[in-house]
Amino acid sequence: MHAYRSHTCADLTAAHAGETVRLSGWVHRVRDHGGVLFVDLRDHYGMTQVLADSDSPAFAAMEKLRAETVIRIDGRVKLRDAALVNPKLPTGEIEVYATDLEILGPADELPLPVFGDLDYPEETRLAYRFLDLRRESLHDNIMLRSKVVRSLRNRMWDTGFTEFQTPIITASSPEGARDFLVPSRLHPGKFYALPQAPQQFKQLIMVAGFDRYFQIAPCFRDEDPRADRSPTDFYQLDVEMSFVEQEDVFAAIQPVIQGLFEEFGAGRRVDTDWPRIPFAEAMLKYGSDKPDLRNPIEMQVVSDHFRDSGFAIFAKLLEQEGTEVRAIPAPTGGSRKFADRMNAFAQKEGLPGMGYIFWRKVEKSADEIAEEEAEYAEMRKNPNFNIFGDSEPTIARFKTEAAGPIAKNIGLERTEAIRQQLGLGVGDAAFFLGGKPEAFEAVAGRARNEIGRELGLTDENQFKFAWIVDFPMYEKTDEGKIDFSHNPFSMPQGGMAALEGDPLAVRGYQYDLACNGYELVSGAIRNHKPEIMFKAFELAGYPASEVEKRFGGMVKAFRYGAPPHGGCAAGIDRIVMLLADEVNIREVIMFPMNQRAEDLMMGAPSEPTNEQLRELRLRVLPKE
Amino acid sequence: MHAYRSHTCADLTAAHAGETVRLSGWVHRVRDHGGVLFVDLRDHYGMTQVLADSDSPAFAAMEKLRAETVIRIDGRVKLRDAALVNPKLPTGEIEVYATDLEILGPADELPLPVFGDLDYPEETRLAYRFLDLRRESLHDNIMLRSKVVRSLRNRMWDTGFTEFQTPIITASSPEGARDFLVPSRLHPGKFYALPQAPQQFKQLIMVAGFDRYFQIAPCFRDEDPRADRSPTDFYQLDVEMSFVEQEDVFAAIQPVIQGLFEEFGAGRRVDTDWPRIPFAEAMLKYGSDKPDLRNPIEMQVVSDHFRDSGFAIFAKLLEQEGTEVRAIPAPTGGSRKFADRMNAFAQKEGLPGMGYIFWRKVEKSADEIAEEEAEYAEMRKNPNFNIFGDSEPTIARFKTEAAGPIAKNIGLERTEAIRQQLGLGVGDAAFFLGGKPEAFEAVAGRARNEIGRELGLTDENQFKFAWIVDFPMYEKTDEGKIDFSHNPFSMPQGGMAALEGDPLAVRGYQYDLACNGYELVSGAIRNHKPEIMFKAFELAGYPASEVEKRFGGMVKAFRYGAPPHGGCAAGIDRIVMLLADEVNIREVIMFPMNQRAEDLMMGAPSEPTNEQLRELRLRVLPKE
Repeated sequence: MHAYRSHTCADLTAAHAGETVRLSGWVHRVRDHGGVLFVDLRDHYGMTQVLADSDSPAFAAMEKLRAETVIRIDGRVKLRDAALVNPKLPTGEIEVYATDLEILGPADELPLPVFGDLDYPEETRLAYRFLDLRRESLHDNIMLRSKVVRSLRNRMWDTGFTEFQTPIITASSPEGARDFLVPSRLHPGKFYALPQAPQQFKQLIMVAGFDRYFQIAPCFRDEDPRADRSPTDFYQLDVEMSFVEQEDVFAAIQPVIQGLFEEFGAGRRVDTDWPRIPFAEAMLKYGSDKPDLRNPIEMQVVSDHFRDSGFAIFAKLLEQEGTEVRAIPAPTGGSRKFADRMNAFAQKEGLPGMGYIFWRKVEKSADEIAEEEAEYAEMRKNPNFNIFGDSEPTIARFKTEAAGPIAKNIGLERTEAIRQQLGLGVGDAAFFLGGKPEAFEAVAGRARNEIGRELGLTDENQFKFAWIVDFPMYEKTDEGKIDFSHNPFSMPQGGMAALEGDPLAVRGYQYDLACNGYELVSGAIRNHKPEIMFKAFELAGYPASEVEKRFGGMVKAFRYGAPPHGGCAAGIDRIVMLLADEVNIREVIMFPMNQRAEDLMMGAPSEPTNEQLRELRLRVLPKE
Repeated sequence: MHAYRSHTCADLTAAHAGETVRLSGWVHRVRDHGGVLFVDLRDHYGMTQVLADSDSPAFAAMEKLRAETVIRIDGRVKLRDAALVNPKLPTGEIEVYATDLEILGPADELPLPVFGDLDYPEETRLAYRFLDLRRESLHDNIMLRSKVVRSLRNRMWDTGFTEFQTPIITASSPEGARDFLVPSRLHPGKFYALPQAPQQFKQLIMVAGFDRYFQIAPCFRDEDPRADRSPTDFYQLDVEMSFVEQEDVFAAIQPVIQGLFEEFGAGRRVDTDWPRIPFAEAMLKYGSDKPDLRNPIEMQVVSDHFRDSGFAIFAKLLEQEGTEVRAIPAPTGGSRKFADRMNAFAQKEGLPGMGYIFWRKVEKSADEIAEEEAEYAEMRKNPNFNIFGDSEPTIARFKTEAAGPIAKNIGLERTEAIRQQLGLGVGDAAFFLGGKPEAFEAVAGRARNEIGRELGLTDENQFKFAWIVDFPMYEKTDEGKIDFSHNPFSMPQGGMAALEGDPLAVRGYQYDLACNGYELVSGAIRNHKPEIMFKAFELAGYPASEVEKRFGGMVKAFRYGAPPHGGCAAGIDRIVMLLADEVNIREVIMFPMNQRAEDLMMGAPSEPTNEQLRELRLRVLPKE
């Protein structure tokens, strides 16, 4: 018999009853039922119930077992009594009567239990990651991640892409974050950099004549800690294609991502219709370039209704150039309580508040009804009245009233026009934000999310995708300078000619894939023409010499026959987080750093030896 | 029609004749056949012949094309004349008559041609890697590498392994080379290390309860340059399994490697019978722990034949303890010319020379024949002579003679005993090396290779594998200290008890897979018991505190229920080199460093900025 096991802990069923078997695994739990000991024996594959009574030669050893000890047992498979069958467990029909037990790996008192659902501080979990990983939910997440990566790889190969590995110890490849540097021992004083992304390499692969590249690529960015990103390295599905336009990239990627979500979405609906939404439209309608389209709310511009209106704040605001008032419709949100809650949300977000109107049904007063009846009596006098012989209308007891300070200030007519534009009615509300769109769009987007969630409008049981397109190439920095708003390697729409006009009007062939409020994929058709590239950088204030210095390898390559090409990158961690329904990135990574970029289990980073520093010709300076 | 292509350059056949098509690709070659221009248009997939005559609107543009320009052409598919069909090309039945041509990516004068087989200096090839990669042989090697990696992955998944990614920016994980360090910005003065291998992580994965791990893992070793290894990073197929013994690892790995070689061996025979050869036996028989078994030569100990013999050099040598004389049989090597060549080889290897005997057929002298006849006449006088009535034997004209100084010195009888032990005859030779085996084994191994190759005994059209087992745990260093000979994490055979005796006698559960003279895989059953681990390190001179400091994470984990486990790692570059029949590692890597660990294309390593150094609190010291 094998030294450790004849079966895994998930293998045995009623069909094995009577067999002599050998199992190895971890002691998940020991229970003492008055002279009979039960051990839940766990391995990677599953769990098997092992028992021993005082007649068993294994009894004495089993009595002393600590949780998480690794043991090997020999025993006989027995059918469980019908009443004790556990249908939730693949091995739930049987148990194994132990006749021998060997301790393969003893366990000290645990700092973190594996059995049970108690929450433990993250620092403890990270320091004892090897224990934490034995817990079912984390184990499942890590297995899910592996399967997702495998599926992505197979889907890419099946679509005609080839995976190539690009260098890790290399030159700086800036993507807007800091580089991790690696000092060179053979060339002291010089440093390698770890790639922030294989951007230049994948473009070089296209120039080298390989047609469709992908890589599950490690990327390294020395960024300040944030809850939802790894502070050191992360993986992306990196993709590049030659001889393509934007829609070709979409056509290649959609089946891969959609198929993946269908495979691992655990029954959640996967949208198959992926609209293209221009960046400007996304910002207007959703207040975000990664809109959550599970939320049906679309914002609208309602400036005209407020121009020269009695609502002085907006009326005055609209006299300034570049300002707008936008409405967030909130179907079913028509109550003062809800309006107040959203107002509080806006204040928490740093706004003075958020104006609103809500529509409610109110009983007409006796005077109102009398007035309507009088009007009606007047109409009857007209001989043409009711020539079609309709049944006589009765006067309604209730009316729709627009409530809230804005409605009062702008009057009935404007309020009604707003209601009609937004398609709202009794029981609904609308919220208003005004100013320069850049200043309030993001808050508006978050308010939209909040409203959708609060009102239950957002159906969370689905994945909804959209390609956000037509990103602006440039933006104005806080200091008023023109700089690249996203990827400097993108081809401007309109090519060289477009770069002659207003930089802020230039759009790039640049796109993101939004899913449920997250950016899942980001990409572009690249600028493969050196002269357009130099011009594009010049507009952002980078002289040709700087471009040559920073991207010399790629620019050189573009002079020897570069194909038009484009691609994208998808964040693996983000995809797995969405599929696993986790919000903390450390729940989907085997051995993550903590938020201070430390590995508490392995003790990294650590002090170098003097020998190491001497070889690298480096000195660590004292704290200032 | 698509902006760039209706077909790839490998798609078009006679079936497309008459169709209007659009192709994009690189101008491989332009030929001018008196008023008709031919362009070989190349893309990732293949090559298509495009032509234009002076009637074509594309003619003028085509005339000016430089090699490696990227173009888009529109045209009509025409059948070639039967005489001009190229059966070697998938598109060889047709050509495309160009009606329109657009330059997508112009090309400057090339520093390195893509068309043609001229050799270029490696530095030029590396600086213009994107051009070099367009050449067919390198393109094919890189594609082969991708397919090999994919096949390895699929084979591992299909065998029940799961791929997990382990950290890259992490703590030092020593494997006998120097670490690459990464200074931490958040913790100035502290450094991360890039893993020399994911050794500790994969063992932690086992402790975490995942059963069968693999990873195509990047490994980082700051080693001094050597022709056949990458000076910075390389990839290995990294494997670990729980609840296994040595033979379980072999059983898991053989189908993967064997299947891979069968898939990509391009018809070369793949050995399916993988012997287990103990390390000591491999050193004796083959002079190597990675023997080339395509070579049938097996060395033997022949000390006894030289003890107290007339060959003083060996006779004296054998009086010293620990010395041996070994023979390298050389079937068909029986000529003075060959013996002299091998002697010269030995001298080139730094030995004073290599003794030899060779056996040849020589004509007997008249005296010898007369003497034999006289003996024969004497025998006839015996009445029992030839009682069985055999036909009378004739006296042979030729005899076997052992030639060379050794034969002369040790005499006929000993020479003949050697011949019989080695199973040699006329036309064969044997070479002899003596001394302490450690001192000459390696040279003997190289001589064995040389002899096998020179004599054509080594059938190169095959892959022959063997598991080399029973490696010693410890060795004596040049300074006479006991140190680990291979992996310090291996379980000693015999466990704790074995460590009580002579360290040099301890063998580890440690193994290599040899293939055609290379080490393809290396692995071990691990030492998962902290107390045995501390003892093993103590024998090598490492106190417990040092073990805790260097491998604290892993040692801690072993205290909380560690399963018996083991695994191995296979060098991807080496496998691809064997399959592609290349001896230079840079022929199987997309973007390799040069031997001075520089990336000439990207300009790495490079000077850091002062800002970067300040953030890391580092100063570069001036040269001493």
